[in-house]
Amino acid sequence: MSNILTPILLTKEKFEPFGQVIELDQHNETKKINYGQTDRFHDLATLDLNQNNGRPIFNIFRSKPINLPFKVKVVERHPLSSQLFYPLTGSPFLVLVAPNVDKPNANDLQLFISNGRQGVNYAANTWHHYLLALNAVSDFVVIDRSGPEKNCQEHFFEQEIVIESI
Amino acid sequence: MSNILTPILLTKEKFEPFGQVIELDQHNETKKINYGQTDRFHDLATLDLNQNNGRPIFNIFRSKPINLPFKVKVVERHPLSSQLFYPLTGSPFLVLVAPNVDKPNANDLQLFISNGRQGVNYAANTWHHYLLALNAVSDFVVIDRSGPEKNCQEHFFEQEIVIESI
Repeated sequence: MSNILTPILLTKEKFEPFGQVIELDQHNETKKINYGQTDRFHDLATLDLNQNNGRPIFNIFRSKPINLPFKVKVVERHPLSSQLFYPLTGSPFLVLVAPNVDKPNANDLQLFISNGRQGVNYAANTWHHYLLALNAVSDFVVIDRSGPEKNCQEHFFEQEIVIESI
Repeated sequence: MSNILTPILLTKEKFEPFGQVIELDQHNETKKINYGQTDRFHDLATLDLNQNNGRPIFNIFRSKPINLPFKVKVVERHPLSSQLFYPLTGSPFLVLVAPNVDKPNANDLQLFISNGRQGVNYAANTWHHYLLALNAVSDFVVIDRSGPEKNCQEHFFEQEIVIESI
């Protein structure tokens, strides 16, 4: 029997166990800077990139959209660092996560949909699927860690898990 | 007598003394990741954010466009860190910089124009004007440093310096 995942809207509150949602709304702390010319939405994510001689790096990921139905086979996590994704293209995308357990199963998974103007920052050890772009080839700013140690674990599911529709 | 600044096109080569241009082109190192679903444009800027117990922070700046002619009164620099700007809106913007000298004057200034898909990362101590958005209110991802020490110096020009047109 398949496990069917259906997304819910991404919100700061619901995503809080997994990291942070980055979006510009009335809840942000803003500062007027540059002699009034600019609003600074300040320090929008908990970056955790300096452990064990790590350093922050700036990357852009360009992802092809997935086709539905989509079989979920694997998730990954980074024990030593956070990983931030901020969308550049404006297309909705899926965010599939599981909490910090040794071996997540289908019941641990939570599927969110970003409206395309919301980014996410995965906390260290949050299991997450790789980018699940929808509709169009989509670019993302990605802020993560470079360091001397291996910092990516994968978990493959034995169960059949499917995203059928959004 | 006014000093008139006219922009030239931003290129990686011409901007090299001041930091890095971030743009996706055939010169980038890319890696296929995510089981072939994603191209990773890897480590696109020299982030320098960890000096003196600094930490990297992720911000978004929303800038009103300037009106031309525009009088250049002040530049700033950050002795302890780089500062990265990546455009989210796609509008061209101006990048005004001067090299690391004690007191820059009009002759030290170089004015570039970004096509709206090019970001910049200012090296530590590169003098730069605050964001000079054109045409529209423009959002930028900004990666800079939070830390315990003052990390912003300003220099005010005595000469009259004007950007008349682009």
